[in-house]
Amino acid sequence: MFAVSDIAKGVAEGNFLLLAKTISQIENKVDGTDAYLAALEPTPIPIIGITGPPGAGKSTLISGLVGEWIAAGKRVAVLSVDPSSPFHQGAILGDRIRMKEWYLHPQVFIRSLASRGHLGGLNSSMIELTTLLQSVGFDRIVVETVGVGQSEVEVASLADTTVVVLVPEAGDEVQMMKSGLMEVADLFVVNKSDRPDAQTFINHIHQMMMENGVSDTLVKVIPTIASQGVGMTDLIQAIDAHQLANTELGSNKKLILAKAIQLIVAHKMRQIDFKKMEQDLEVACAKPHFNIFEFTQRFI
Amino acid sequence: MFAVSDIAKGVAEGNFLLLAKTISQIENKVDGTDAYLAALEPTPIPIIGITGPPGAGKSTLISGLVGEWIAAGKRVAVLSVDPSSPFHQGAILGDRIRMKEWYLHPQVFIRSLASRGHLGGLNSSMIELTTLLQSVGFDRIVVETVGVGQSEVEVASLADTTVVVLVPEAGDEVQMMKSGLMEVADLFVVNKSDRPDAQTFINHIHQMMMENGVSDTLVKVIPTIASQGVGMTDLIQAIDAHQLANTELGSNKKLILAKAIQLIVAHKMRQIDFKKMEQDLEVACAKPHFNIFEFTQRFI
Repeated sequence: MFAVSDIAKGVAEGNFLLLAKTISQIENKVDGTDAYLAALEPTPIPIIGITGPPGAGKSTLISGLVGEWIAAGKRVAVLSVDPSSPFHQGAILGDRIRMKEWYLHPQVFIRSLASRGHLGGLNSSMIELTTLLQSVGFDRIVVETVGVGQSEVEVASLADTTVVVLVPEAGDEVQMMKSGLMEVADLFVVNKSDRPDAQTFINHIHQMMMENGVSDTLVKVIPTIASQGVGMTDLIQAIDAHQLANTELGSNKKLILAKAIQLIVAHKMRQIDFKKMEQDLEVACAKPHFNIFEFTQRFI
Repeated sequence: MFAVSDIAKGVAEGNFLLLAKTISQIENKVDGTDAYLAALEPTPIPIIGITGPPGAGKSTLISGLVGEWIAAGKRVAVLSVDPSSPFHQGAILGDRIRMKEWYLHPQVFIRSLASRGHLGGLNSSMIELTTLLQSVGFDRIVVETVGVGQSEVEVASLADTTVVVLVPEAGDEVQMMKSGLMEVADLFVVNKSDRPDAQTFINHIHQMMMENGVSDTLVKVIPTIASQGVGMTDLIQAIDAHQLANTELGSNKKLILAKAIQLIVAHKMRQIDFKKMEQDLEVACAKPHFNIFEFTQRFI
């Protein structure tokens, strides 16, 4: 595998070839990956998770943030995670088009994590890749989760600052509550806030936060119009403020423990011989009383 | 721990004292639990999972099913899983009241699994308890998941037949799609089907199934009015037909593998010394470059 210093040199020059190759090697778990990861010396750059329902304008919002950061001389990495079916790549393709203005910029690295991943596999990949990005000179790291369902909540819960992007639409609040986004949100963005019902929607979010015992001094609600660049400065300030507060509160350590557990589970999963399990099951099921605990003990 | 034959004798007589005690012992992981579970000789009674949003009438529906089964001479066990916060017990208490007509019936055993459980803990408990129930003479086993969010989908995906209960209400279809219930449903029940918009709602479900490539010969949509006992016979027939088809298709084995993996993960999780992990983290974080992979290796 490539020396980290060589990858970092490439990143500093806007050449992401070695980085991209290394990411593929890590995703493919080539020999030596574990030792390579364990030898990294990451700088604790906070991970910014950006999530929300499809159509909320996440990519436009990220484009806006990236623009501000570039202007401030920062190097930015964006990982796009699509936990939904591999047969529905529309969202990712759309995002790529919306973010294309940055695809060739020397300060911006963009990569999609297409694989769905089993039982912690996706989270495990995210931890591996963000640790690599923290070790090769990036100043800002964004993980965007598109798609629907529980995976986005899982992934978001591994980010240091999770931004939930919503648009003023009836029913979205209820949706958000039920899908668990309320619990993972460190910041709410109400995008397309020039819509007529935006203020009512913002009031609803505040009301729901109150009902859930979420303090509005800790969790801010930021109105934006990403397509016009409105609210980007406010959002960046809110992200920075959250990360500062987070460090002071020590909640980073809780996050590290959560990540460590994900990694341990993923590691254990890789050790299971699934092929043998399937073969043994044929025999075990033929017995009159199949006992799953007796069966499972062979693979522990 | 108690001899399985003694528990089964109690169940046959409508005395669930030993069963209840054994469930508590298993939940508390008393010494010998693993060996006890591995020695069970379960009959492969299919697990019927019943899930859906709060207020859909799940408990009334289960009451109706239980009534039919009792009349047919069956012994029935119902596990109620509430994966939501332990501070919101309202749903469970409400269910208890609705199902109270069966609480003292000698053919019916009802138990709530109140614990939220961490990372597979809830599923692991469900597998343990349903295997015990399969070993002591029950003919029908129902797992009811109340509450919201992803946990109900996880639990439902471990049942042999998952029944998703909905009521004709605007927005519920979208909700169902997003929460992943569409993927786990083996049968849909449209309860309160005497509401005026019921047929439109049923059409929507069929349309969504078509869009998702779900065959309506495999996944039936059953209209019911549980409070009046309407549709119970249809539902029981559909459950039986699904379980027969399931056995023929061999999809039981896929389910067994999924359960085995859950058990292995839960077992590995119990071996992690979380206290030591927290202590070590204090020291590790003080270093200039905290590496989570290097840190995690100590606990693998």
